[in-house]
Amino acid sequence: MSMIIQHEALRAIVANIYEKLGVPEQNARTAAEIAVASDLRGVDSHGVGMLPRKVDYMCRGLIEPNPQIKIDRETPATALLDGGNGLGAVAGKRAMELCIQKAKAVGAGFVTVHDSNHYGIAGYYSMMALEHDMIGISTTNTTPLVVPTFGRKAMLGTNPISMAAPAGQERPFVLDMATSVVPSGKMAVYKRQDKNIPPGWAIDIEDQPMTDPDEVSKMLYSRSGGGLLPLGGEGEEFGGHKGYGLTFMADILAGALSGAAFGSFVYPSKDGKQSPGNVGHFFGALSIEAFRPLDEFKRTMDEMIRDLKETPKVPGQERIYIHGEKEFEIEAERRRSGIPLHDQVAATLKELAQEMEVEWVD
Amino acid sequence: MSMIIQHEALRAIVANIYEKLGVPEQNARTAAEIAVASDLRGVDSHGVGMLPRKVDYMCRGLIEPNPQIKIDRETPATALLDGGNGLGAVAGKRAMELCIQKAKAVGAGFVTVHDSNHYGIAGYYSMMALEHDMIGISTTNTTPLVVPTFGRKAMLGTNPISMAAPAGQERPFVLDMATSVVPSGKMAVYKRQDKNIPPGWAIDIEDQPMTDPDEVSKMLYSRSGGGLLPLGGEGEEFGGHKGYGLTFMADILAGALSGAAFGSFVYPSKDGKQSPGNVGHFFGALSIEAFRPLDEFKRTMDEMIRDLKETPKVPGQERIYIHGEKEFEIEAERRRSGIPLHDQVAATLKELAQEMEVEWVD
Repeated sequence: MSMIIQHEALRAIVANIYEKLGVPEQNARTAAEIAVASDLRGVDSHGVGMLPRKVDYMCRGLIEPNPQIKIDRETPATALLDGGNGLGAVAGKRAMELCIQKAKAVGAGFVTVHDSNHYGIAGYYSMMALEHDMIGISTTNTTPLVVPTFGRKAMLGTNPISMAAPAGQERPFVLDMATSVVPSGKMAVYKRQDKNIPPGWAIDIEDQPMTDPDEVSKMLYSRSGGGLLPLGGEGEEFGGHKGYGLTFMADILAGALSGAAFGSFVYPSKDGKQSPGNVGHFFGALSIEAFRPLDEFKRTMDEMIRDLKETPKVPGQERIYIHGEKEFEIEAERRRSGIPLHDQVAATLKELAQEMEVEWVD
Repeated sequence: MSMIIQHEALRAIVANIYEKLGVPEQNARTAAEIAVASDLRGVDSHGVGMLPRKVDYMCRGLIEPNPQIKIDRETPATALLDGGNGLGAVAGKRAMELCIQKAKAVGAGFVTVHDSNHYGIAGYYSMMALEHDMIGISTTNTTPLVVPTFGRKAMLGTNPISMAAPAGQERPFVLDMATSVVPSGKMAVYKRQDKNIPPGWAIDIEDQPMTDPDEVSKMLYSRSGGGLLPLGGEGEEFGGHKGYGLTFMADILAGALSGAAFGSFVYPSKDGKQSPGNVGHFFGALSIEAFRPLDEFKRTMDEMIRDLKETPKVPGQERIYIHGEKEFEIEAERRRSGIPLHDQVAATLKELAQEMEVEWVD
């Protein structure tokens, strides 16, 4: 069972809750927009379901409702932003706007952010470039959940990598992938369906494959050792060292290049009390016109996409998907028919709205 | 059995062969330098073993010995280069130098190249950024060898992604990975060792797992359907769609953004006769100082690297590797003791040298 809610209504509730916590109206709208964009695209793990945790952090002083976002360093093609320990969505949108502005001026723009927090789906920011006919890039570090190849303790985040590129007649290409085999949100999905996860997604501190999603979630949360496996799985035979390398690469760009926390230091627990996460992000925009006539690029993208879709399929499969395609289809459906909220998410959100004296819909 | 040769001697032979074919001295040296860099780092599949093929292409007019490399478009942070159908190494080095120059001037530089050819190891170019205290990025498209998720025909290249970042006391991070489970060169390695490859690396046109490396090589060469699997393997359960997405992403940057051939059109056979490859590349450089004080960045890198190396190991493993580390160790050894050339590679090369009246060493 789940509740269906229209995206506009959901956005208003989220924005109103943030405003009650002292987030300025414009920023509250941005944060709500980005959270609901995740639910619209079917990435329920990164949407409004995260609101209670963010509210809790804000109430405990771990996230600043009205941060001073400052430019620490700047060149024509780059900048470093201080996120002021505010909402990741607010700093993220600001940083990506700056990338786009720089790419308009000098062809490319790259911006890193330190002292930020969870920014939702990486794909929101890369997709901001699309309406400017640019290629958008976005990555972030996250709390350590992933073991390095040959390690048995989580040392790196599931650090997503996203790139978006516009097409002509076809839908844009939007890659938005955790660099682990699966994101941690998959555990909740499998738990709700009362299913085991396949061996090859996570190992425990003894290097044994884990199959109970609930146990994996507990292990990840407790930081007791073990973790999710990098893309490519365990060892090197199927390229696990490559997934580990991508995770590391994302952390160099988002963490080391911004001066944020990094590696196993993101969201550390100090003396049993959580301290601000100091999450880091990395964004980029490349102006297509700087490289090639736009219409030619778009025609190429259309050709690539069609060529791929026409590939002969393996038995039992009828479609080759382009990255982002499934999410665009879900979004079209959810814009029409509303967003299904899982019962527990809806109940928690309703409770939160009542607590904050924010109007709920029924 | 194999022959041992000093890297300087090998470099001279390769450069001399290229010069005999009409490659200007400086370009011949560049191409030799990059080929031998691959052998030095232990990536034998991309080193001087490729020379006979390149010489053959040059003799058949498929690669231009003395190309006009031109800047087609330019902005302060970007450029598009016409590789003039010359050696990929020559255009690649030129493009990366331009990235570095732009990153010095405006913080970031990104350059794409069309009408190029196989450029050797992606990591050579990303590593060029290291001595300038920059992060280097490099990717290229290649001949189609990889099936998209749910497809049973090779439509995309093994398109490598490379990023290099300097550290302080520690060695730099150098990721250089094919976006397929394994690069096609692994087939030759397994064949030489008379070993089967594990199921999960390649499928045939009927979607059956292949285990004979020789059959895989023949299949890839014949373009008869089937192909290597993307990183993450078959289907979506272990993230094969992510590997497919990374391969596609590389082709958008290297192929679509440069106006080179792309997807299944790289190295097409026309009327049974091979035509120039029109390979595309993508390079980038990010000035670290543009984002953060250099010494702080390097200290962070050292900390990340040490933290990862100290991760508790799984049973049977004694080291956590950093990307590039194995190759740096091989390079140190091969600089000292020489490069072991496989018998067949040495014989072919010697024959080629004699044909071209280039002095050989014994």
